[in-house]
Amino acid sequence: METRKKYTLTMLVENEPGVTARITGLFAGRGYNIETICGAPTANPKMSRITITTLASPHLLAQCMKQIQRLVNVIKLRDMTGEEAVKREMALVCVKAPPADQKQIKQIISDFQGRLLDKGEQHLIFEVTGDEMTVDVMLAQLAPFGIKKLARSGVLALYREP
Amino acid sequence: METRKKYTLTMLVENEPGVTARITGLFAGRGYNIETICGAPTANPKMSRITITTLASPHLLAQCMKQIQRLVNVIKLRDMTGEEAVKREMALVCVKAPPADQKQIKQIISDFQGRLLDKGEQHLIFEVTGDEMTVDVMLAQLAPFGIKKLARSGVLALYREP
Repeated sequence: METRKKYTLTMLVENEPGVTARITGLFAGRGYNIETICGAPTANPKMSRITITTLASPHLLAQCMKQIQRLVNVIKLRDMTGEEAVKREMALVCVKAPPADQKQIKQIISDFQGRLLDKGEQHLIFEVTGDEMTVDVMLAQLAPFGIKKLARSGVLALYREP
Repeated sequence: METRKKYTLTMLVENEPGVTARITGLFAGRGYNIETICGAPTANPKMSRITITTLASPHLLAQCMKQIQRLVNVIKLRDMTGEEAVKREMALVCVKAPPADQKQIKQIISDFQGRLLDKGEQHLIFEVTGDEMTVDVMLAQLAPFGIKKLARSGVLALYREP
């Protein structure tokens, strides 16, 4: 069995009903789990950009990409895995924060340039952005306090201009 | 015909192959366009949180939600539309920026607390976060300079603790 590695694919697609279902269906048909998915309209509202990360073997991913490219609603597909790309994600985090812990938690949020969005007596909600590893490291530092809720956007990638 | 409005749904699902395809397939089957979708693992890697925004009529959305809830891999589904929720999104933007325009563009990025990620002689790549309207307003201000590439995460939502 080939080793699986993590791939980042971005695609420009028509903003039409059913397009996301067709693309995710191709992954499902091959038993690939979509690790993260992000999709939203571009500056041209007739188009959307979808970014997917997945664990796959190089050989089977190539087949999957071919099939994606055959879909009529897919205009462009790019493997950003090895690319010199800007990759970022956002996380919204709700962390348990009794008064005695708030100072220490706020320090961690500030270390990672996070932004406080909601503040209660027993919790804090904030956003943080960064590459995947940075977000992981921050979450590991907060884990001992107790992460009540977490919503991650998944990776967004833009190719660096030459 | 009932008027359609924009809904924000968040769901906690099992992090398994095929789950995203099944959920997006339900929308496709009803001819609903998924405006934005965001999905990624939670603090518990066996679970993912998926956030979807869609335009729908109240009656048909209710039917669609019932079907989503029937999927075995869906643990929790919540309509965050009317909820007092924290809603944020991130955008990665590549904007045309010849030297003569850079100062003005950087000022707009700074006004919206964006972060510069890559800088060339003819372009700037930055990230910005905010609610959907804030991101829209910023993009409108940058449009005259020329937006070369745009990747939006789509909305993430976390319920505010009481």
